[in-house]
Parts: sequence; C-alpha cells; structure tokens
Amino acid sequence: MLGPGKADLLQQIRETGSISAAGRAMGMSYKRAWSLVEEMNAAFREPLVQSARGGASGGGAQLTAMGEAVLVGYRRIEEIAAEAAGAEIAALAGFLRDMPGGK
Amino acid sequence: MLGPGKADLLQQIRETGSISAAGRAMGMSYKRAWSLVEEMNAAFREPLVQSARGGASGGGAQLTAMGEAVLVGYRRIEEIAAEAAGAEIAALAGFLRDMPGGK
Repeated sequence: MLGPGKADLLQQIRETGSISAAGRAMGMSYKRAWSLVEEMNAAFREPLVQSARGGASGGGAQLTAMGEAVLVGYRRIEEIAAEAAGAEIAALAGFLRDMPGGK
Repeated sequence: MLGPGKADLLQQIRETGSISAAGRAMGMSYKRAWSLVEEMNAAFREPLVQSARGGASGGGAQLTAMGEAVLVGYRRIEEIAAEAAGAEIAALAGFLRDMPGGK
C-alpha cells in the first residue's frame, strides 16, 4: 500500500508544491514520480495528490485531505514501530550500504 | 530502504525462483521487477538477489544469504509493528480502495 519511498514522496510534494520538484529532491525521474503518484491515487478511496497541469502558475501539486491523513497516519505508525522494533530496524539498517549524501 | 512492495517481491522471488515470475505474480512488468531488484542490490552491502540469465536452466533467481536475512528481518519488524500499531495500521488500511483480487 505505502512504503517509505512513497511516504517521502508525499512529504516532498507537501513541502515543494510540485511533483517534479519532489521527485528531483529524491533523485527520481519526473516519470517515476508521476507513476508513483498515480499508483497511490488509484490505491486509495480518494486521491492523495491533486495536481494542476499548466495554467498561470505552471501547474503545481498539493496533498488532498486524504493525502494529509495518510501521510500523518504513516508517520505515526513509523514512530510506534521505531519505538517497538528499534533494535530490529537498526540491525536491518546496518545492512545498508553507506550512501554518499544518502540516508 | 525497503517497503512492503520490495519485501513482497523478495518473497515471490524466493517462492518462484524467477524475477519475471515474481513480478508477474505481483502484476508488475518484467522491467519494473528488474529495476526494483537492481535498486535493492545496490542499496545493501551485498546483493539480495542472485540471478543467472540464460544457460541450460533458462536463468532463474534466488535470494542470497543477505536477501534471506533482510526479508526475515523485515517480516519480523512488520510483526512487531502490527502488534504495537495494529489500530493505526487498520485505520490506514481502511482508506484503501477495495481491489478486486487485490489485498
């Protein structure tokens, strides 16, 4: 349904007001960012992201009320999980390669 | 690092012994499945999936020891999270559209 990548994309859209800027901030292509937004919009009962192509403002995107609720709910689950499974999460994160500039 | 989609893909690769069969079982294109495998293999200190293209067996793929460890660790985190944040996860899942044949 939703993993860390999509949650981060939602958050970047909220912060940048743009799907392409959000994707750029995460090092993904415009096409990939749009594709993930379309997946999320189709998976939930209401779209999570509302976007306007073109127009005076040159487009732009924002989270819907459902998008806000999903992002907040996801972050809350992450917090609870981090508290309950902190040791297991740290062990898994220890298997990750150190990325220059990554996380 | 890893979300539910990639974890399911790892599990399907373990079960089917094939990246393309795993992707098919999840309704994703061969290209998408390969791309996700490449992302995971690059993100971790060692590859999670080992694959052989062509050859007498026509290719095939399997999880490495690291892939097994990551999948088992991820499922354990999910279990702990489901126990600790069950109500919040159920609330979020309630926002999902009912997918015919989906989950």
